[in-house]
Amino acid sequence: MAEAALASWSEGRTKETILAFVDQVTTKGSTFVPVADRIATFDNDGTLWVEQPMPPQFDFVFGHWAEEIKQDPSLAEKQPYKALIEKDPSFLQGVATQEPGTIKALLEAFGRSWKGSTPEEFESQVRGWLATAKQPKLGMRYAELVYKPMIELLDLLRANEFRIFVCSGGGRDFMRVFAEETWGIYKENVIGTAAEYSFIDGKIVRGEHPLGTLDVGPGKPEHIFAQTGRLPLFAGGNADVDIEMLSAAKFSVIVNHDDAEREFAYTSGADASFEKAAELGWTVVSMKDDWNTVF
Amino acid sequence: MAEAALASWSEGRTKETILAFVDQVTTKGSTFVPVADRIATFDNDGTLWVEQPMPPQFDFVFGHWAEEIKQDPSLAEKQPYKALIEKDPSFLQGVATQEPGTIKALLEAFGRSWKGSTPEEFESQVRGWLATAKQPKLGMRYAELVYKPMIELLDLLRANEFRIFVCSGGGRDFMRVFAEETWGIYKENVIGTAAEYSFIDGKIVRGEHPLGTLDVGPGKPEHIFAQTGRLPLFAGGNADVDIEMLSAAKFSVIVNHDDAEREFAYTSGADASFEKAAELGWTVVSMKDDWNTVF
Repeated sequence: MAEAALASWSEGRTKETILAFVDQVTTKGSTFVPVADRIATFDNDGTLWVEQPMPPQFDFVFGHWAEEIKQDPSLAEKQPYKALIEKDPSFLQGVATQEPGTIKALLEAFGRSWKGSTPEEFESQVRGWLATAKQPKLGMRYAELVYKPMIELLDLLRANEFRIFVCSGGGRDFMRVFAEETWGIYKENVIGTAAEYSFIDGKIVRGEHPLGTLDVGPGKPEHIFAQTGRLPLFAGGNADVDIEMLSAAKFSVIVNHDDAEREFAYTSGADASFEKAAELGWTVVSMKDDWNTVF
Repeated sequence: MAEAALASWSEGRTKETILAFVDQVTTKGSTFVPVADRIATFDNDGTLWVEQPMPPQFDFVFGHWAEEIKQDPSLAEKQPYKALIEKDPSFLQGVATQEPGTIKALLEAFGRSWKGSTPEEFESQVRGWLATAKQPKLGMRYAELVYKPMIELLDLLRANEFRIFVCSGGGRDFMRVFAEETWGIYKENVIGTAAEYSFIDGKIVRGEHPLGTLDVGPGKPEHIFAQTGRLPLFAGGNADVDIEMLSAAKFSVIVNHDDAEREFAYTSGADASFEKAAELGWTVVSMKDDWNTVF
């Protein structure tokens, strides 16, 4: 193990527990895990980058929809466009709690906006947003708001022959645009909620409906199994929608956003997961105490 | 490139064409392809192993269904069980041509047989079959009927930093059982037709219906894009159900089964693909002339 492993992590019990687990599964003996089974899966929003005041993908999507409303003002009468115009916080709350009406309205709007588009068109839109949009409180571009300690954790696992997958409720194709440069993992290692695509006239073209379940809650282990044929050895998350993924893993870390000064302090959308963490012995990562650097 | 690359391939135009392509995309210059884009996808039945008199998975499935008919003789009245009892060759023909009624009957029977099972139960059944079943003409176990020249081709591509995926109309979970020992690729690099799974009480449990489209025809590039976020740089196939995948790739090889002595000689289910090969300049691999060793 490299001397500098987890350099942005403060010395203490959390760092020791993670290093000890990696050491156990890679050292010959009763706790050894063959390389083939070394799958690590990480949530994205709030686990690998900032998710306040809303997951960054919404900033991209809402910007796109604001342009659509300009083209077609009648959209402003219905959801989710109405919530966007009115800056209605209860709508985002409905996303966090997976309120069925909210999710349905969102999925219909996604279908409407990108139906018939090619991956190249979508990638170009996401790249345009990445290059310009800034997080309102921290004033930095979103790609700069990836947690340095988590990137070091990916590096540590990779150095120990783990295969890293990101598994987010967010859009698979959205994350795939920046996965290779941001996380050092190939597009095929990104798992997320995704649309159906068809191969028409030699091109991949986006359909209107999602493929399979949403990648939240039980959908996370379902998507992970579908993509990899395994459940994770190591998992990282930060919210209630990660509970099933973290429960399915042999070793789990959960990020506690308790650092109002350097990032944000909140527990909304994560209360049940911290109860579960105590019950099942997951390793709780305090941003304030366990990370000497955040970005 | 290793001296012994493609050792089981006879010297000649086919081998030279493959080696030249790999050389081109890995040598700095106008034809260079970045490592991230080096995706290679291969069909399985008839491309990586024997598919006559029927794809080996049918031998496994039909054995399973024969046991089910013993338990419940009323099954013998309906398809696909009836065709199995009557050894009806037109049924298998309907599979090859993707006849809708045949496919529907098959999918219902798959759903009925494995609904509610865990991946561990299914894997144990496939391993039992692999250890004992033999191909009727060649008298060898199916795992021994993988084409040695194709394994060498996978090795050549891997040595040149391609990531190898198998993409078959056959069952994803069936192939994942033996992928790692047979092809040297992880389970996550196997793409195929698959059932929906649910995460229930901490376990992955198989559902009744397929997830998305069947992995044949246009379904192949659709599944490849869903799994990897890319279309292939290199693809290998042997049949009409591979046409869209081979068309989507930058460089394609198609295996011609013209070796009645060492394997089989047939063109059924592949006529349109050889027309397309001539039209689009795919590299046709003659088993008889291009392979000095088959198994």
